[in-house]
Amino acid sequence: MTLIARNARIASRALAAAPASQRSAALQALADSLRDREHEILAANAIDMDAAKADGLEPHLLARLKLTSSKIAGLREGLGQLLEQADPVGSHLRKTQLDDGLVLTQVTSPLGVLLVIFESRPDAVIQIGGLALRTGNGLILKGGREAKHSNAILVDCLRCALDAANLPHDGVCGVEGREAVHELLDCDEDIDLVIPRGSAELVRTIQSSSRIPVMGHADGICHLYIDREADPSMATRIAIDGKCDYPAACNATESMLVHRDFLDRLRPLGAALIDAGVTLKACPEAARHLDHCEPAEDADGATEYGNLTLSVRVVGSLEEAIDRIHSHGSGHTESIVTDNAETAASFLASVDSASVFHNASTRFADGYRYGLGAEVGISTGRIHARGPVGADGLLTTRWLLQGQGQIAADYSGDDARSYQHRSLPLEPKKT
Amino acid sequence: MTLIARNARIASRALAAAPASQRSAALQALADSLRDREHEILAANAIDMDAAKADGLEPHLLARLKLTSSKIAGLREGLGQLLEQADPVGSHLRKTQLDDGLVLTQVTSPLGVLLVIFESRPDAVIQIGGLALRTGNGLILKGGREAKHSNAILVDCLRCALDAANLPHDGVCGVEGREAVHELLDCDEDIDLVIPRGSAELVRTIQSSSRIPVMGHADGICHLYIDREADPSMATRIAIDGKCDYPAACNATESMLVHRDFLDRLRPLGAALIDAGVTLKACPEAARHLDHCEPAEDADGATEYGNLTLSVRVVGSLEEAIDRIHSHGSGHTESIVTDNAETAASFLASVDSASVFHNASTRFADGYRYGLGAEVGISTGRIHARGPVGADGLLTTRWLLQGQGQIAADYSGDDARSYQHRSLPLEPKKT
Repeated sequence: MTLIARNARIASRALAAAPASQRSAALQALADSLRDREHEILAANAIDMDAAKADGLEPHLLARLKLTSSKIAGLREGLGQLLEQADPVGSHLRKTQLDDGLVLTQVTSPLGVLLVIFESRPDAVIQIGGLALRTGNGLILKGGREAKHSNAILVDCLRCALDAANLPHDGVCGVEGREAVHELLDCDEDIDLVIPRGSAELVRTIQSSSRIPVMGHADGICHLYIDREADPSMATRIAIDGKCDYPAACNATESMLVHRDFLDRLRPLGAALIDAGVTLKACPEAARHLDHCEPAEDADGATEYGNLTLSVRVVGSLEEAIDRIHSHGSGHTESIVTDNAETAASFLASVDSASVFHNASTRFADGYRYGLGAEVGISTGRIHARGPVGADGLLTTRWLLQGQGQIAADYSGDDARSYQHRSLPLEPKKT
Repeated sequence: MTLIARNARIASRALAAAPASQRSAALQALADSLRDREHEILAANAIDMDAAKADGLEPHLLARLKLTSSKIAGLREGLGQLLEQADPVGSHLRKTQLDDGLVLTQVTSPLGVLLVIFESRPDAVIQIGGLALRTGNGLILKGGREAKHSNAILVDCLRCALDAANLPHDGVCGVEGREAVHELLDCDEDIDLVIPRGSAELVRTIQSSSRIPVMGHADGICHLYIDREADPSMATRIAIDGKCDYPAACNATESMLVHRDFLDRLRPLGAALIDAGVTLKACPEAARHLDHCEPAEDADGATEYGNLTLSVRVVGSLEEAIDRIHSHGSGHTESIVTDNAETAASFLASVDSASVFHNASTRFADGYRYGLGAEVGISTGRIHARGPVGADGLLTTRWLLQGQGQIAADYSGDDARSYQHRSLPLEPKKT
């Protein structure tokens, strides 16, 4: 595994230094191979599907595992979009003239080598692989056992695409098994970022067992705060959408905080949620204003239910709501419903979460909805990238200084030259 | 220590949510207290100096430990500069209209809580503390034992300044002793970033013992590559400056790679280095073109000497130079001397280091020289911040979404609304 990581590092440097056109050629070759090798891919997937059915895999997991012509067409379309986008490597972020003929440019660079650990969906190989090619990153992929044959052929498509573009195929590598992951998590010299896409347990295990930075989130315990000045019908729509639109999503609302002065309007809101199939777990004070509910237990309010259960709790003030979010939330997404602009501004300024909303459903926290294009994941960490992460999250920067023989000693002592530090306009980069 | 970290987290949220004017008031109060309490500060420092002299501390460390009126005036000037700068919190980085009346803004936010571990210089308390106040971060400071009394009073100045601005004084906290650091390095829930400022050993120990991200660098093994088409006099100036300007600095040149075709011009360059007091440790082939040198050993070329020793090694091509940099360097700073623009462009595109230079001394890799204002440190990591890091490295982002009751279900199914994803101009933020 150490060797795989080391080879990925070496190959990643070739990917990073290659011109954009070469990375584009690899993307094009990948799209072509999905067309040319479709039968082969579907045949490999059929082997996985047969084994999964024999193992009694649940229907919704079988649906995720299954590849179809139309799914493959969708993947090719995604690659086409990546091909249309401007190459993100080598963009100028800052340009400063330090002195005459001494110009500093901060440019975007690939992060290096990514380790992506994902479950069941083999489509992820191509989605993540395409992003890695576009951003010039090396990639080590560990998929689920049940998609073994599908993943293997899709990784082969990626490696062949690198070959076709005269790039080293070790830039993409597939590995199998937990043991392999454990060994890779120790390769902090050669792997720069781990992206776990799966259960909260998977993410937590990886976070606690590696010194390599991990991008993602374990929990999504999103709050909706109904202020005293909330419009009841807006609050109802947003509460139902946040809980019911897709209860298993990380951006689903798990906990509703209600201002005490709103309690006289809570009953119809609660009734609408119950009509929508929601089970309410309420604190005693909220319970008195609800037709049906279960009593809240200690863990409620800090639980990601992932189903149609919603915690309901009364708070006495905006400050109490914010404190509760900070003590019980996971820093993912919180929303306030209020007609008072000042209260909203205070909530937006004070809540320490990746996404903070006013009069909108927590369900909007998503890279596609934010307009980021491809989404790498949603990060609840504060370092490097926070919230929904697009291709930008796979880039870092380098500082390039172009001189004419300048030395530091010229700028100290008697007759020292002074730094100009003049900002220069950013030109579009040459490709 | 868990409690200290937790209290810093709570206080940091108040700092983050406070208006810029309140953080500025704290900075002003800090500057005032340095003036008003100067005698008290110098008296505390005198106690540390007496103890350090009795302990036989080396003169250059005594010089770093000593506080003077003029050093304090310098600190006040630095705070004045921070006061003049625009408040960096809440700046708009991206603004997108997702739909009519649904606007997403990505804003800068403080990282949260910083743990800064530093050695001897008590001035660092005020420099780092000022930056933390300006960027709205909570701060836990662990200084050296020898500066105990000086650090304590300077931390008290910071805490009083927070009080004076009606901000919670637990936003800044000083701790002592290794045991405290060990416990704090486990507080990954409440500390977001560790910044070690000290020896390579200190940095490595911390990197290997904490799951909290560490910003900094252990080694600075910077390379200078003299290309076949290098101008000999420029190469000589840059080599001498890189090695001799400040040999103990992390951006000093430690290793010089020389293209085989340059060897006929190496002797005078070597002689100039020797004249400047440099000890050359050369590979056998380079040695034949040098008047005096010691034989290079295995470790040479991957050693941060920190003194006037320079490794010299012959390479046969640009590619060999780059491979050598990747296998022996620390990713800090590398420079090429060449008159060939194409060779330079290839070096700048291919070298995977935080700073990559053409025809300039490695000594320019520095936040002040880059025009970043205050320098937090130099990072050789790829995540979050790379190279010299200014106040920007102490910020993260949040995503604010302002709606009018929109829900995600409106954008799916029949009659689905479409996202507009229209970029809006960035307005200067209100303070």
